Amino acid sequence: MSRMTVIGLEGLGEVRAGDSIGRLIWEAWSRQGESLLEGDIFVVAHKIVSKAEGRLIRLAEINPSARALQIGQDLGKDPVLLEVILRESRRIIRMGRSTIIVETHHGFVCANAGVDLSNVGLGYVALLPQDPDQSASMIREEITRLSGVAPGVIISDSFGRPWRLGTTDIAVGVAGFKPLKDYRGVSDRYGYELKASVAAVADELAGAAELVMGKRGEVPVVLIRGFEVEAGEGSARELLRPEAEDLFRNF
Amino acid sequence: MSRMTVIGLEGLGEVRAGDSIGRLIWEAWSRQGESLLEGDIFVVAHKIVSKAEGRLIRLAEINPSARALQIGQDLGKDPVLLEVILRESRRIIRMGRSTIIVETHHGFVCANAGVDLSNVGLGYVALLPQDPDQSASMIREEITRLSGVAPGVIISDSFGRPWRLGTTDIAVGVAGFKPLKDYRGVSDRYGYELKASVAAVADELAGAAELVMGKRGEVPVVLIRGFEVEAGEGSARELLRPEAEDLFRNF
Repeated sequence: MSRMTVIGLEGLGEVRAGDSIGRLIWEAWSRQGESLLEGDIFVVAHKIVSKAEGRLIRLAEINPSARALQIGQDLGKDPVLLEVILRESRRIIRMGRSTIIVETHHGFVCANAGVDLSNVGLGYVALLPQDPDQSASMIREEITRLSGVAPGVIISDSFGRPWRLGTTDIAVGVAGFKPLKDYRGVSDRYGYELKASVAAVADELAGAAELVMGKRGEVPVVLIRGFEVEAGEGSARELLRPEAEDLFRNF
Repeated sequence: MSRMTVIGLEGLGEVRAGDSIGRLIWEAWSRQGESLLEGDIFVVAHKIVSKAEGRLIRLAEINPSARALQIGQDLGKDPVLLEVILRESRRIIRMGRSTIIVETHHGFVCANAGVDLSNVGLGYVALLPQDPDQSASMIREEITRLSGVAPGVIISDSFGRPWRLGTTDIAVGVAGFKPLKDYRGVSDRYGYELKASVAAVADELAGAAELVMGKRGEVPVVLIRGFEVEAGEGSARELLRPEAEDLFRNF
């Protein structure tokens, strides 16, 4: 019988710039008395990775540009926050209704370039890690070194969606497994060959993790056991739809 | 320690028009020797609900309209399939690159109006249930009648996303719990009041279920245990972003 378990990691403690997230995770996991098995996947909220990598910005130190001031006026948003968002962005995709949707330097399309005010301390914002795939790889390597088992690692963030309310957590960084599961060429029970069936399993795993993490920062890491991963190096870039195949990027 | 489990339901057997999905689920679940607890959620692939409700179309019986023929030519898609898609749609949102994104009569924005060729038999397509919330309620009521426990129920489907590759499963029908978890007004550990934090937990639960279901139709139902549901009637309509708040519907 197929069964998948999502286990919250507690007692990680406050993360500070320079900390090794891989070591913190492994130590907290061991204290929890859990084993680590081949195929296990750690999902890590990007916030603690950003903290460890020093990707916090003190808003009082930012001078908004003329462009940020103008957009701030148009949208009714804080120009200082907008300045940080613009610096994290490759381009603006859409603005309106107090919302700014951009493409980040990584290629993610999301609100506010992933710049986030929650769970970082008043007056500060967290940026996404500069290279979340590399962050995931480093966590994977450190845990492998300490435990002898190489888990999959996902760095997650909460993204909104155009036509649906509420955020779902998705993968901004991946290491150690294939983020897309490709069923194309496989036949169903009736002999119909599945043509359009590629599942974004890394995003579904991040979403499953969020259900245990919540939003208050108390459970920033979960372990998922029992999902049949496909081995591979893995990268969150595999989840980015190329612009040429996208119907909602250029207007 | 927080822990959530996703358990596949096997041996449901072939579903036919007129079957009670609630009864089939309860019988298969009992055969599997599992208990049912308050707060458990059954996630049901819409395909078996569509079958039970007779929402299959034999393509040989469909005559494409002039509009379907024209769009078929423009997109390089089967005009018969397009005719079915147009009948299921309130309007077209975007077309191009062999893809048609529509708003269904329910208000879902998705490719092909949810019309699906897989896991239904060659020459047939499955439509979404006419009222997936009502389908979910009926399943919930039947299971409650048979078991004495009222589970949450989600009807799921696989939807694509504009900027990311691969599908994730989302909730098209909901019964017995709140599909959005609202953290607004709650404060984080630093005293920052969460302002934009509403999680689409029903969609994340559907995605978690997909990781155990797969795409070949062998595991069309899973049970999720250990997620802290918020009680409520629940409706997948709560997940629809109103058009007035949407930046990607009108161009």
